[in-house]
Amino acid sequence: MTETPAPETPLLDRIAEPADLRNLSDRDLRQVADELRSETIHAVSRTGGHLGAGLGVVELTVALHAVFDTPRDKLIWDVSHQCYPHKILTGRRSQMNTLRQKDGLSGFTKRTESPYDPFGAAHASTSISAALGFAVGRDLGAPGNGDAIAVIGDGALTGGMAFEALNHAGHLKKRLIVILNDNEMSIAPPVGAMSSYLSRLYAGNPFQDLKAAAKGAVGFLPGPLQEGARRAKEMLKGMTVGGTLFEELGFSYVGPIDGHDMETLLGVLRAVKTRATGPILIHAITKKGKGFRPAEHASDGGHATARFNVTTGAQSKAPSNAPSYTKVFAESLMQEAADDDRIVAVTAAMPDGTGLNLFAERFSSRCFDVGIAEQHGVTFCAGLAASGMKPFCTIYSTFLQRGYDQIVHDVALQRLPVRFAIDRAGLVGADGATHAGSFDIAYLSNLPGMVVMAAADEAELRHMVATAAAHDDGPIAFRFPRGEGVGCDLPERGAPLEIGKGRMIHEGSRVAILSFGARLAEVEAAREKLMARGITPTVADARFAKPLDRELILQLARDHEALITIEEGAVGGFGSHVAQLLAENAVFDTGLRFRSMVLPDAFIDQAGPHQMYADAGLNSDDIERRVLSVLGVDVLERRA
Amino acid sequence: MTETPAPETPLLDRIAEPADLRNLSDRDLRQVADELRSETIHAVSRTGGHLGAGLGVVELTVALHAVFDTPRDKLIWDVSHQCYPHKILTGRRSQMNTLRQKDGLSGFTKRTESPYDPFGAAHASTSISAALGFAVGRDLGAPGNGDAIAVIGDGALTGGMAFEALNHAGHLKKRLIVILNDNEMSIAPPVGAMSSYLSRLYAGNPFQDLKAAAKGAVGFLPGPLQEGARRAKEMLKGMTVGGTLFEELGFSYVGPIDGHDMETLLGVLRAVKTRATGPILIHAITKKGKGFRPAEHASDGGHATARFNVTTGAQSKAPSNAPSYTKVFAESLMQEAADDDRIVAVTAAMPDGTGLNLFAERFSSRCFDVGIAEQHGVTFCAGLAASGMKPFCTIYSTFLQRGYDQIVHDVALQRLPVRFAIDRAGLVGADGATHAGSFDIAYLSNLPGMVVMAAADEAELRHMVATAAAHDDGPIAFRFPRGEGVGCDLPERGAPLEIGKGRMIHEGSRVAILSFGARLAEVEAAREKLMARGITPTVADARFAKPLDRELILQLARDHEALITIEEGAVGGFGSHVAQLLAENAVFDTGLRFRSMVLPDAFIDQAGPHQMYADAGLNSDDIERRVLSVLGVDVLERRA
Repeated sequence: MTETPAPETPLLDRIAEPADLRNLSDRDLRQVADELRSETIHAVSRTGGHLGAGLGVVELTVALHAVFDTPRDKLIWDVSHQCYPHKILTGRRSQMNTLRQKDGLSGFTKRTESPYDPFGAAHASTSISAALGFAVGRDLGAPGNGDAIAVIGDGALTGGMAFEALNHAGHLKKRLIVILNDNEMSIAPPVGAMSSYLSRLYAGNPFQDLKAAAKGAVGFLPGPLQEGARRAKEMLKGMTVGGTLFEELGFSYVGPIDGHDMETLLGVLRAVKTRATGPILIHAITKKGKGFRPAEHASDGGHATARFNVTTGAQSKAPSNAPSYTKVFAESLMQEAADDDRIVAVTAAMPDGTGLNLFAERFSSRCFDVGIAEQHGVTFCAGLAASGMKPFCTIYSTFLQRGYDQIVHDVALQRLPVRFAIDRAGLVGADGATHAGSFDIAYLSNLPGMVVMAAADEAELRHMVATAAAHDDGPIAFRFPRGEGVGCDLPERGAPLEIGKGRMIHEGSRVAILSFGARLAEVEAAREKLMARGITPTVADARFAKPLDRELILQLARDHEALITIEEGAVGGFGSHVAQLLAENAVFDTGLRFRSMVLPDAFIDQAGPHQMYADAGLNSDDIERRVLSVLGVDVLERRA
Repeated sequence: MTETPAPETPLLDRIAEPADLRNLSDRDLRQVADELRSETIHAVSRTGGHLGAGLGVVELTVALHAVFDTPRDKLIWDVSHQCYPHKILTGRRSQMNTLRQKDGLSGFTKRTESPYDPFGAAHASTSISAALGFAVGRDLGAPGNGDAIAVIGDGALTGGMAFEALNHAGHLKKRLIVILNDNEMSIAPPVGAMSSYLSRLYAGNPFQDLKAAAKGAVGFLPGPLQEGARRAKEMLKGMTVGGTLFEELGFSYVGPIDGHDMETLLGVLRAVKTRATGPILIHAITKKGKGFRPAEHASDGGHATARFNVTTGAQSKAPSNAPSYTKVFAESLMQEAADDDRIVAVTAAMPDGTGLNLFAERFSSRCFDVGIAEQHGVTFCAGLAASGMKPFCTIYSTFLQRGYDQIVHDVALQRLPVRFAIDRAGLVGADGATHAGSFDIAYLSNLPGMVVMAAADEAELRHMVATAAAHDDGPIAFRFPRGEGVGCDLPERGAPLEIGKGRMIHEGSRVAILSFGARLAEVEAAREKLMARGITPTVADARFAKPLDRELILQLARDHEALITIEEGAVGGFGSHVAQLLAENAVFDTGLRFRSMVLPDAFIDQAGPHQMYADAGLNSDDIERRVLSVLGVDVLERRA
């Protein structure tokens, strides 16, 4: 793909840090915004990444940094995949070509990356809570804290914790600024009554022309505190439509305003900065993908993209050699659902990412998008299961953490047959540490009555979908990684696996490698290398972390000098359960050389998945080394 | 305490199951309610338990069972500590004397206990999600499902997942009945803007006299579907005040109504049953503790009680021999806060249970009750920490599960120094399996950068509070059990412990017992018994599950034939981390007899704490047996 030349950005070139914005005229700020939009498109065209969300907040980004005293004022981007323009303005422009790459800029805000990132994010709905923490800290005298400003999308507002934070903030009445960035779009089109409500707010009240009112207000000198507060309230009241849900929760409400109209944005933000006393919500209407036609016209607003041609929008994606796990999951689930009308599927605002968009096309009445609401999603599934349905709760590993208590208390404790389909298990590549699915094996496998599986390849995944569909005695979970499968033959239909039974892959001697999940391919590769050295490991696929295949594991332990487990998860999961089994059966007493290969005790930053697993020490080279080391084979050679 | 004789309950005596209510006149139903109230007071006076909440819903319980076709209609009590009258009406009256005791009735709804308990609960805010699951299952054809009715308190409504469920239900528009039981009281007086809003709703609109309107409606015959829907909507509209927050979320709103006026309740419920088409919320005002003066007058509405005298309300509590862990925590935190004004404390609607009520009296500006909102609570603390404060996030182990993703993503990933004070760790007694703090060691200890401590006794707890206050480099957690300490000497002030260092308690030989947390007393008792048999175990207190005291653990492994870990938590926690350390250091290769004593793979029902730990196999007898077994000592003797 030929690169488009960098856009001309004469004004933006003069902005080394946000303070430089504060000397510019409103007209110049508008031009900075235009240039920033071009620069953002140019940057993402070279790296890929999240595009639509950033383009929707270009004017907002410029206006916020121009009006507020960042980094003393704390600007907190919810989810923060819209932070690319913010990064460009805050001293990271020259590094934008490293975005989402190893040792490069994160695709999200990150405290260690910049003082302009006071709070990192990547999971939705956290910004109001964090901002309230900053506001309270400020009012308790913590130095260096000015205003606290949360920018949250309408999609993220469906997350319960955002409501919890509004409820608490409305109660505390501290000065706090929440900007509702309403693009009628989270990642997918939004669902939920709140979204309809916001649409009605907007429909019933076309853009408020607040330029004059706001401008007038800037000139006010603060009066005595009480008087100032009263006047501020009145002034802000003049800007609001009254009687909104947010006002009922204790917030002043301003809006809706055109989030792409720089003059309005600057006026409102200046008025709010001068006059706000308590919590205030500014409702800005924006367009995801604004200013880049291919994004504006995409159904997801150009949410995320590979590298692309700026002129045509054509993306350069590497050809795939195998179907993605996600697609195999979705197709397998559709096969099961075609035969069993008790099967229903639930996603938390990720229909495309989970493949349930395909399911929804075919079984629309049996597919539910609950919004960014994993807690509700899990318990909704528990209710469905209690009613006699077969719910597949389809949530990424990292986001399922949001529903952990509900898994424990509503599902496992009641032994309800909810099926957890856990995509993006293990390390995920460019999204980095915030999206890693590192902990689910551990946090699920110690729940009484839970069945926990991991797919070694896409064929196994198909069988596990069938296994989950057939398993009606309590909850069951299966995890699978992001990305393409290994390209193995796919069976026409999945066949239910026997619960708690693993499978022998290769019989060998001396050392057994027991794999749980998709590291199996790396184990196989390691075995090849080891055989070249005259070592022939036994390889088995555990399939189940719970219940364990006792017979298989104890046999492996009996028949080998060493047993190595491997999984794409943190300590406390599969390997720990195997260790517990070995301990209970007095196997350690015999001197079995046991090792458990798990994710290291560190959050691993973004890189290619293979590189991330190299950083984690879980690739074939690492497995080979571990085998040699545990067998006491001289490994100097590899160091040469 | 002399027992008060059982009350006269002639009508209630004739109610074997809810269907029997459906033949009674409204007047008789009122009498049943009166008798049910007396019976509830009588029952709880003999067993102790949750009282105030149940007394507040006596009329509602009778009316719901009289109007709806339970158990075909699914009646779901949120939190469900208000379910005692429901249990009495649903065939469990004769077992009420076993309430919250081993092998007795649960203090909460429980699916395995009765078909009238379609969904168990004990954590708040789950009922709307579950009810929506039942409603959707019903509409998809799952047999045996009638109406789905959630009864949720105003306190539980502050939980984000309740909002998530309202948002989804308002979107789906399925017939669903939510009864908001508004007693202006969760466990503590409620905080939050939602609570103020509900008060304003009530204040602005005194009880609606809906008897006539509702009564008239019952006579309607359903017309053609569209016509019926229109008329139902109109009729319900006549019952509502309009423009509420709930209507903005897609619910019809009825109320507020007097939740103790049987005629109104019956009328409204009959009208709703006949006419509701989509989601509807009935706002009932009730009084916690209604009809029992000592409860009505208590600040917490008589939330929970020991056995008591029905006439005087005087409770019979066993004298305590040592201060509770909770109290030691609160006092220790106040000591630290007196010297460090950066310390703030956060509770999620549990000021009394966590001891923060004491803290709030002294440091009111530095104590925050966020409501039943653990997700927000954790991230609010993350924001506070990022602002430079020292937040103590004080949440029971079981409820902290609600904030798990926030701990991972907002706290640990950003290495923010949030202090987690985890009360009710381990098994908790009468509240049973739903409140067990079984998983926190596992779900915290594999988070990079987290420090995890457990207090062996109340003096250790005091030191750990000081340690957490002093530790500013990343998050730190300390857990401690429910109930009284062991009665050890308390230091005047806590002294910060060295991070990652355990302590030797007794040097011995052959076997080392490494305890993490409050099982230490049982370990000591086991050691006494073993010494009588000529075995002198080494005993050490690990103090830290993370970071582990490598030196101590490897030394114990080197110097003993056997190493046994013990903790009040499930597999995947402390013992698993020790096993990983031993594996990485090739210790198993030497034939070390390693055992890890953890909570068993089962949810353990309520009993006295000692009995629960006996069921779990973690008392001194169990430890003794384990030592004998691991050393190969003939243990026939104990079986005699």
